[in-house]
Amino acid sequence: MRTVRTIAELRELLAAERRAGRSIGLVPTMGFFHDGHLSLMRRARADNDVLVVSLFVNPTQFAPGEDFAAYPRDEQRDAELAAAEGVDILFSPPVEEVYPGGFDTTVVVGGLTETLEGDEAQRGAEHFQGVTTVVTKLFNVIRPQFAFFGRKDAQQAIIIKRMAEDLCIDTEIVVCPIVRDDDGLALSSRNAYLSAEERSAATVLHRALEKAQVLYGGGERDAETIVKAIEEVVSTESLVRIDYISVVNTKDLEPVQTLSDDQTILIALAAFVGKTRLIDNVVLNGEI
Amino acid sequence: MRTVRTIAELRELLAAERRAGRSIGLVPTMGFFHDGHLSLMRRARADNDVLVVSLFVNPTQFAPGEDFAAYPRDEQRDAELAAAEGVDILFSPPVEEVYPGGFDTTVVVGGLTETLEGDEAQRGAEHFQGVTTVVTKLFNVIRPQFAFFGRKDAQQAIIIKRMAEDLCIDTEIVVCPIVRDDDGLALSSRNAYLSAEERSAATVLHRALEKAQVLYGGGERDAETIVKAIEEVVSTESLVRIDYISVVNTKDLEPVQTLSDDQTILIALAAFVGKTRLIDNVVLNGEI
Repeated sequence: MRTVRTIAELRELLAAERRAGRSIGLVPTMGFFHDGHLSLMRRARADNDVLVVSLFVNPTQFAPGEDFAAYPRDEQRDAELAAAEGVDILFSPPVEEVYPGGFDTTVVVGGLTETLEGDEAQRGAEHFQGVTTVVTKLFNVIRPQFAFFGRKDAQQAIIIKRMAEDLCIDTEIVVCPIVRDDDGLALSSRNAYLSAEERSAATVLHRALEKAQVLYGGGERDAETIVKAIEEVVSTESLVRIDYISVVNTKDLEPVQTLSDDQTILIALAAFVGKTRLIDNVVLNGEI
Repeated sequence: MRTVRTIAELRELLAAERRAGRSIGLVPTMGFFHDGHLSLMRRARADNDVLVVSLFVNPTQFAPGEDFAAYPRDEQRDAELAAAEGVDILFSPPVEEVYPGGFDTTVVVGGLTETLEGDEAQRGAEHFQGVTTVVTKLFNVIRPQFAFFGRKDAQQAIIIKRMAEDLCIDTEIVVCPIVRDDDGLALSSRNAYLSAEERSAATVLHRALEKAQVLYGGGERDAETIVKAIEEVVSTESLVRIDYISVVNTKDLEPVQTLSDDQTILIALAAFVGKTRLIDNVVLNGEI
C-alpha cells in the first residue's frame, strides 16, 4: 500500500492505472477505522482493480464548537488496517492540500440537507455542504467507477446520491449496511468517547430501532405510534437523551405520518449518551 | 456534425472518442451565434480532435424579470454556423434533460460572484451560481481537456477558473479575446435588441475603454481619474446610461485605488443603451 499526500501524485498514479484499463474504487473516510470502514474496504476490494481509501478529517463538515480538533486520529494504525484489507492507495492529504489559499467553492444540495442532521438546531446544512464539496473534489481527482458509503450516515448517502445524479458525476454510489458490535451498537469513531457505562447504555438505541422494526413487521403503519415505542425503549436508559426521532421517506426525507407500502422509509435518530452525540437508523421496505 | 439532445447519447459518443485516444474540446454557449462564439469554435477546432459545442439557454442564470423567455434563439442557423466551423457535436438538450424533476444541487463560488455583475443591485450572485452549476454538469458529462470562454464575460471566466481549480476539475479553461465589430462594439447576442440609433450610440463603450487604455499607457495609475475619463466619454451619448464602472484586480475582483505594475487589472463596465444592458471590459497589464 502506498500513502499519498498530494493531489498531483494521486492523479499521476491513477492515470497510469486508468491507462492500463483498471477500474478504480473509492472509500472516502475520516479515518480512525473500525469494522464499519473495513467492511466498506472489503466490499470495494472485491469489486475494483485499484482500491483507494481517502483519510481526511474534513474541517468544513464540523460545525463551530464541534469536535474537529478532538476528533480521534491514528493514521499509523489506520494505515496498518487498510494495508491488511488490501488497499492499494491511502490518500491522506494535509488540510492545505485540499483547501489551499483562495479556495472558495461549495457544492450545495438543497432541501435534503436542511432536515434531520442538517436542521439548524442540529449540525446545520453547512455540515453537508462540507461533505458534498470534499466528496466532489475526491471524485474529480480520483474519478472512481464506484464509491462506497456506510448506511450509518443514511442522510449523507442520500445527499451524495442526489448530488452525483444532479451533477452527472460518473461514479456509482454504493451504500453498504451498518456494521454493529455484538451488543448491537452501530460502530462509530465517536464511540471512542463513551465511558464503559455509557457504552452499555448506548445499546438501547439499537434495541429501540429493533422494536420499531418488529412493530412494522407486525403491521403497524402509524409513524407516531412507532416513534412513541422508540421513545419508550430509550427512556429505560437514564444516560441517554433523545435529540430527534424522524420517520421520513428516503426519496425526499419528508416526514411520513402513515407508512405506505410503496415508500421506502428511514427511521433516523440522534441521541446524546452523556456528552457524546450518536446517530443510528433503520430502513424499512427497501434500501437507500 | 451531429446534434445531440440527451446526456446519455453524448456520453456514449464521447466514450468512444476517448477510447480512440482523441482529445475533446468544449465551447459552452447559449446559442444565437455571432463571431465571438465562432472565434471560440475556431480556436477550439485547432486545438482538439473532437469539438463539442453546447447550446443551452440556461434558465437558472437569468434573474427573475430578466430576458429568459425573450432571449434570442435560432438553433437552425446556429447549427449551420457551427457545422461550417467544423464542429463535431452540437449538444442542444431540452431544459428538462439538464434539470430533471428533483434536481436540487448548486455549485457556489463565494466572493468573486458577489461583486460587479453579481452585486445584488445587478444580476446577483445567483446568476453565477446558475453558470457554475451548468458548467460543472457539462464538464462532468463531456470531460473536455479544454473549455473555451470569451473574455467579454471576464468575471464569468475568472469565476469558472476559480471553480475548476477549487474542485480539481481536470479541464483547462482557455479565455479568448473579445471579438468586436468594425466600429468597436463588443459582439453580444443582446446586441440584437438594439435599434439602429442605439447600436451606433453603444460604440461609445469601446471608445471609453480605449481612452482608459491610452491613459494607462501614458502612465496614469489613479483608478478614480480613469473612471472619470470613461464617464466623460460615455456622457457624450445621451442614449447610454452607465450602470457601473469598476477597476478591480483580476485575482479577487477587489477594487483597486492605485494601479500597480504587479497586478493585472480589469476595468469592467455595464451600461444601459435604451433598455438593453450591455457589458464590456479591458484588461491591463496581463491576461485573465
